[in-house]
Amino acid sequence: MEKPAETQHPIHELLVRRWSPRAFADRAIEPEKLRSLLEAARWAPSSFNEQPWSFIVATKDDSAEYERLLGCLVEFNQGWAKAAPMLMISVASLKFAHNNKDNRHAMHDVGLASENLVIQATALGLFAHGMAGFDVEKARETYGIPDTHLPAAAWAIGYAGDTDSLDPQLRERELAPRERKQIAEFVFSGKWGKTAAVAR
Amino acid sequence: MEKPAETQHPIHELLVRRWSPRAFADRAIEPEKLRSLLEAARWAPSSFNEQPWSFIVATKDDSAEYERLLGCLVEFNQGWAKAAPMLMISVASLKFAHNNKDNRHAMHDVGLASENLVIQATALGLFAHGMAGFDVEKARETYGIPDTHLPAAAWAIGYAGDTDSLDPQLRERELAPRERKQIAEFVFSGKWGKTAAVAR
Repeated sequence: MEKPAETQHPIHELLVRRWSPRAFADRAIEPEKLRSLLEAARWAPSSFNEQPWSFIVATKDDSAEYERLLGCLVEFNQGWAKAAPMLMISVASLKFAHNNKDNRHAMHDVGLASENLVIQATALGLFAHGMAGFDVEKARETYGIPDTHLPAAAWAIGYAGDTDSLDPQLRERELAPRERKQIAEFVFSGKWGKTAAVAR
Repeated sequence: MEKPAETQHPIHELLVRRWSPRAFADRAIEPEKLRSLLEAARWAPSSFNEQPWSFIVATKDDSAEYERLLGCLVEFNQGWAKAAPMLMISVASLKFAHNNKDNRHAMHDVGLASENLVIQATALGLFAHGMAGFDVEKARETYGIPDTHLPAAAWAIGYAGDTDSLDPQLRERELAPRERKQIAEFVFSGKWGKTAAVAR
């Protein structure tokens, strides 16, 4: 299933098609596509070119590792994400390598890199669904993530599946219209809360 | 000038071409393109669809407002960013609207939205250069940004300019090769620091 954004102004078709489904097909991601996803993240911009992102990945060809990563998700997300052939946890490095000072953009820049990955996924016919709902401490313990780093987000990635594979409640959400704030609500000029002329 | 990424695995050409220049042309961004940039940000994913992003924008057609935003940047960035026809400060909303609890993904999700905007810029022949180097407190005071929100990053956006417009030191950086970590350095499986097979 595709669920293109209903845009008010034209945007690139990759951004229109990007969407976070819960129904994934039982189909593996080709290794060369997986490498392209990671390469896309690699070329994101970051503060001081720190590249504060890491990704812990698991695919279904290694079912034990896949289950370990799946076990870090909250139960609700496990319910649908277990259909995705690839799971991932992004991790932010909290200090700059060059001076060990706090990098206040660590999470922000993991976001930049992750969106690159997501858009590359779209370009390859894949979909990526980000999740805040995972157990940060369990991920830390499971993988031995040091306290210089912060588990950021979990992702389920794969080909789109049949909406009928979802239980009724999730299917309803899967089919519901996509919603966003109006541009006028978040684009300001001159002072906070004053809609910019271009956004009216 | 273009400075395509030298990738080890194929990625979409928009991600190859995305780059953060310091030389910008003296050419305004068409208002419909500006709206497309903001629309692209609008359709990013976010935790609980919170959309915790706002953008304060200034263009050169309003020189007073442009100067106010430019004045929030650190001096070094002012030196080159003043050539860009559009400046922007992204802002993260730190609490969820539905329950007023901390949104630990606020900065992360501003990153997701910002990268959408950056990629849309690339699709329109524009470039966007993100900056950590701006005065957060000055931005807060200048625009009256409430303490429920955090100024995230500054951005200079425009058409690419002539590298010769830069002073020698910046020109050298502009022409230097682009560098990134190897995928093997940041893609793990099974445990922290253990390179995933697919990334070897």
